Amino acid sequence: MITAGIIGATGYVGVELVRLLISHPEVAKLSLSSVSFEGQNIVDIYPNLRGLLRGKTDGLLGDADAVVEASDVVFTALPHGIAEKYAATCLEKGKKLIDLSADFRFDDDEETFKAWYGKSWEFPAVHAGSVYGLPELKRDLIKKASVIGNPGCYVTAATLSLLPMLAKGLVKTDCVIVDAKSGVTGTGRNPTATNNFSECGEAFAPYNVGKHRHQPEIARNMSCAAGKPVNVVFTPHLIPMSRGIIATVYAQLEKKMTAEEVHALYSEHYKAEPFVRVLPLGSTATTRNVRGSNFCDVSVHVVNGGATLEMVSAIDNMVKGAAGQAVQNMNLLFGFAETAGIDQVPAAF
Amino acid sequence: MITAGIIGATGYVGVELVRLLISHPEVAKLSLSSVSFEGQNIVDIYPNLRGLLRGKTDGLLGDADAVVEASDVVFTALPHGIAEKYAATCLEKGKKLIDLSADFRFDDDEETFKAWYGKSWEFPAVHAGSVYGLPELKRDLIKKASVIGNPGCYVTAATLSLLPMLAKGLVKTDCVIVDAKSGVTGTGRNPTATNNFSECGEAFAPYNVGKHRHQPEIARNMSCAAGKPVNVVFTPHLIPMSRGIIATVYAQLEKKMTAEEVHALYSEHYKAEPFVRVLPLGSTATTRNVRGSNFCDVSVHVVNGGATLEMVSAIDNMVKGAAGQAVQNMNLLFGFAETAGIDQVPAAF
Amino acid sequence: MITAGIIGATGYVGVELVRLLISHPEVAKLSLSSVSFEGQNIVDIYPNLRGLLRGKTDGLLGDADAVVEASDVVFTALPHGIAEKYAATCLEKGKKLIDLSADFRFDDDEETFKAWYGKSWEFPAVHAGSVYGLPELKRDLIKKASVIGNPGCYVTAATLSLLPMLAKGLVKTDCVIVDAKSGVTGTGRNPTATNNFSECGEAFAPYNVGKHRHQPEIARNMSCAAGKPVNVVFTPHLIPMSRGIIATVYAQLEKKMTAEEVHALYSEHYKAEPFVRVLPLGSTATTRNVRGSNFCDVSVHVVNGGATLEMVSAIDNMVKGAAGQAVQNMNLLFGFAETAGIDQVPAAF
Amino acid sequence: MITAGIIGATGYVGVELVRLLISHPEVAKLSLSSVSFEGQNIVDIYPNLRGLLRGKTDGLLGDADAVVEASDVVFTALPHGIAEKYAATCLEKGKKLIDLSADFRFDDDEETFKAWYGKSWEFPAVHAGSVYGLPELKRDLIKKASVIGNPGCYVTAATLSLLPMLAKGLVKTDCVIVDAKSGVTGTGRNPTATNNFSECGEAFAPYNVGKHRHQPEIARNMSCAAGKPVNVVFTPHLIPMSRGIIATVYAQLEKKMTAEEVHALYSEHYKAEPFVRVLPLGSTATTRNVRGSNFCDVSVHVVNGGATLEMVSAIDNMVKGAAGQAVQNMNLLFGFAETAGIDQVPAAF
Repeated sequence: MITAGIIGATGYVGVELVRLLISHPEVAKLSLSSVSFEGQNIVDIYPNLRGLLRGKTDGLLGDADAVVEASDVVFTALPHGIAEKYAATCLEKGKKLIDLSADFRFDDDEETFKAWYGKSWEFPAVHAGSVYGLPELKRDLIKKASVIGNPGCYVTAATLSLLPMLAKGLVKTDCVIVDAKSGVTGTGRNPTATNNFSECGEAFAPYNVGKHRHQPEIARNMSCAAGKPVNVVFTPHLIPMSRGIIATVYAQLEKKMTAEEVHALYSEHYKAEPFVRVLPLGSTATTRNVRGSNFCDVSVHVVNGGATLEMVSAIDNMVKGAAGQAVQNMNLLFGFAETAGIDQVPAAF
Repeated sequence: MITAGIIGATGYVGVELVRLLISHPEVAKLSLSSVSFEGQNIVDIYPNLRGLLRGKTDGLLGDADAVVEASDVVFTALPHGIAEKYAATCLEKGKKLIDLSADFRFDDDEETFKAWYGKSWEFPAVHAGSVYGLPELKRDLIKKASVIGNPGCYVTAATLSLLPMLAKGLVKTDCVIVDAKSGVTGTGRNPTATNNFSECGEAFAPYNVGKHRHQPEIARNMSCAAGKPVNVVFTPHLIPMSRGIIATVYAQLEKKMTAEEVHALYSEHYKAEPFVRVLPLGSTATTRNVRGSNFCDVSVHVVNGGATLEMVSAIDNMVKGAAGQAVQNMNLLFGFAETAGIDQVPAAF
Repeated sequence: MITAGIIGATGYVGVELVRLLISHPEVAKLSLSSVSFEGQNIVDIYPNLRGLLRGKTDGLLGDADAVVEASDVVFTALPHGIAEKYAATCLEKGKKLIDLSADFRFDDDEETFKAWYGKSWEFPAVHAGSVYGLPELKRDLIKKASVIGNPGCYVTAATLSLLPMLAKGLVKTDCVIVDAKSGVTGTGRNPTATNNFSECGEAFAPYNVGKHRHQPEIARNMSCAAGKPVNVVFTPHLIPMSRGIIATVYAQLEKKMTAEEVHALYSEHYKAEPFVRVLPLGSTATTRNVRGSNFCDVSVHVVNGGATLEMVSAIDNMVKGAAGQAVQNMNLLFGFAETAGIDQVPAAF
Repeated sequence: MITAGIIGATGYVGVELVRLLISHPEVAKLSLSSVSFEGQNIVDIYPNLRGLLRGKTDGLLGDADAVVEASDVVFTALPHGIAEKYAATCLEKGKKLIDLSADFRFDDDEETFKAWYGKSWEFPAVHAGSVYGLPELKRDLIKKASVIGNPGCYVTAATLSLLPMLAKGLVKTDCVIVDAKSGVTGTGRNPTATNNFSECGEAFAPYNVGKHRHQPEIARNMSCAAGKPVNVVFTPHLIPMSRGIIATVYAQLEKKMTAEEVHALYSEHYKAEPFVRVLPLGSTATTRNVRGSNFCDVSVHVVNGGATLEMVSAIDNMVKGAAGQAVQNMNLLFGFAETAGIDQVPAAF
């Protein structure tokens, strides 16, 4: 049993971590902080938690340093560029840190991070040993890591949809198209013109076409898997619903394949993965079937007369796309069952 | 043909006025202002208007004084407490003003306004001659007015639902219950925690129970209609949709009546009203059938063994509840056909 | 550890039972049937369940008799009027039955059932010993029962909102107003004009005004609690969202009370209840905070100058309003912890 | 002034035609039929129309033959395969027919129609002279036609997004990707498992991947524009909202181009089109800005280092995607102003 801490517990990712960790069988205590609501009780900010703290926390939102002090593992759910210093402290004190911002998503490639996030690193050393926390890509490294960079939500859906093909060199790499769609929780807790119900309800559109920050991360993962540069065209869209991401991914096959062949390959590749479900041929992935869960459902389609592969992957952006995957990483870090605390059955509706 | 001006053209009520006035057959020119977007073009703020200004305006958002100068009638769609000075200027210059805030909703009763809106009046004189712009209650006064206080959205739905009964003294006045529900556009263009899609989508709740500012306005109208004080219990709820208000109104009958009797009375009372549709017995009012239009649909129900009247009224909060009713008032002020510019057929879905 | 059976496992209530029972610590085996999908696998009907059957069932949908045979407790999630015969068999075989239709919601009052549901009883004997399964009203009887009638969704929300006041005779009983609103899952899995997204999305309205079948059940519960007849005016509305019920309940106080007094009374009354949360004064119940959970949140409001009590209660119609409450009843029947299997933390969004 | 008839007036497309034609300045009379509701009044089926028939119709739903008899132009809004016989009659009687099913979308290519819609033609002769009613592609032919095949909704959005490039041979034709998303009204009035709110609300997924009937129609249009075969990969998705389509279209450029170059070309190509708005560079098309209107907004994006063109087009599936385009075709057929009756200003929200 460990103590887990959440720095930034009142953002959407933070409170989703609270939801999962409070029922986690290996977490004995929770320590919480929030800049916006320091000194208040999380139950007053999120009354869904009323009566459910289960003795793991009194709900009081303290400061970040106290969280680090109290915890065996620290989750940082903060704006980009802030987690570094907590990582440094954790390393020093022999604690683990799982960051849910972009800070540790590019390993030691400061240049790319800086180009897309506009910030330099203050603690370059902590990046040297950090590990990108996509278990399906880096499980063994994760187990031995101290600092984990939890992947972006779109990135998780996109990467998992093409990993087996890239690993085997079966698709062309000059133009992989990721047409992705996300629910509005992806915009976070801060109210903006974008997430005003009257603006995004009953409406649908792409945004940040050709310039979304998840593009370089997807390209990085795909290139890593392919062993050579992959050109990624990534277009996110906003769906008038709360949770869920669909990535519809198009890639040209190096040579024609049947759906059955591709499906067999995916089934084999993911057969031991606890959170990737390769759907039977003829089925199509939907956000509906993964809502509230840590699953990534993928469905295989071969189109254009056998020349083009079309993959559909579905995740809950707040779970496998954020808090759930972070808990999965925690489980790997501490040797817990990989599914501990994230084995909820998704509701049918 | 007149020139109409809108001060505050980029708020939701303002741009809904633009939508209606740009197609209004008696409006030759439109003059627009916005504090937030002064100097910009409304087409860049609201691209739905692209190519549709029809020579009535170049779309440029100027300052408020220029709008007053250019216009025969000025619509003020501003936060509460600001319209007064424009009203004073309009009166001085012989122009008409229709205010869509609460400033002129209480006639000369500064005390009530101050109690609920926390502001005193700077130009008491302009209030003396103002008229409350609910045509079904004050049509003759409106025609001769210079300054109109356009009613609140909830207030319009609630008042129209009970007017005929109150006017005839047929319901008890010690506790009229108005259980009302509104779409999220009622919260306006400013993004807040309340209208963040992730908060209000897939959720339903009352708000401001017992203390919403429309309560005194409803009570005032009902008391005016009844000729004696009416106690109103008003509870607003937020619906996860954009437009539309339902008021479900409960009143104890002075003596038992049948639904047929009440229906006959409503049909008679509203028979000449162009925008009130008394639905056939057996039908129930729904926001769906009035969306985008200036109609108020009312349905009559008698329950509790004939002891209790239950009325349901439906409006589009942005049209009959705001911009459409303001145009209706303009039509009355200038002797245009009352339905001019607001006779759109609501879509079925 | 017991075996639980679900007759009608592919309706919305049925599959919600599957979701809860599959993670229930005291349920070793699940037995499922479905008339519509007999012979198929529930995973193909509800792919959210893929990989999650946990050895409790192979997912095969058999026939009802086999379910009865295999189970210690049978849940019937069927159209009204069908559960009787399974209840008779269960009684005979010494098994427990929890029915989620209306068949056992009126104890031995066949007349009322017949008046509202249009059917007579074929097995009157099974009704004699049945118990109405609202734990907050009948916990002790439930523990000893064999056949349980699980309450209606609206009924649960409405009854819990007023129970403490009725029990103490503090509100007038000539006209209790229950203005209730439900998400669309309440209309079930069968597609109809009512639940077509294009009809009910972006729309809000009451339905079945003065004639909804939950009215007599609410009246029955309230009268039972009050010890005398209570007249109930019940109006359901359909909310454009999936899950959740709000009941806004108005009752005239016998004598003026403060909100503090009422709140103290509710807090005392419900202090030992695991699933009723009396919110702090100043808070308002919302569906958002109970979604996916078995909680009923209630908030207390005193309005109309102290003369009128306004209660707001919120439940998830599929959990406390159906499947969750049924599991709560199962827990009572078998002496399990009352919260076993239904202690999920509701997500914040 | 003409008489217009609608066969199938109570489906979604039919009643949208009613909405538009009832306000059309050149339509004096409307004649309506419905198989499902023959003998009833359309106001009872669609109460949004109450009081709005404007003397053009009494609302009575007659039979189809009477509609043909009474009308100068007949709109058929029927299931696929039924319009033929009405077209034959119209041709015989010298009347015009505009069909909103797929029957006349393939000119004289019976084979393709049969392959995708499973029906043969009974009246081959009427197909010989029919014209595909996409004004931006076939305006001159439409003006002289008697039978018009109104395009599919997805098809309209997809075709308009790429027409200028295909016409000039600037994109590769071996794999044009159309990733399209539609609101639920596209599934029509018949309630199905697909459009049950509880299934499609708060959910997003593709459907009919690689086998949607609009694929051959898109390919046909694009090939027609390109003057050579175009391979189209078409994937539709269902959005949890009522109205609107986004087509995100990807094509490889024959040689690298800048966004400015492409934008200039589109602006020139569409400069005289009343219903295509080429958005300024930097803007992105959204369903929000075209809702309720006949516009198709297109935005230009060049990605993948200048190698790939990404176009976004937005329409209201019920207007430019169905009823509005049909009225546009009627306007062309009769020499009315092309925008008559379909020049509504879309609401901002």
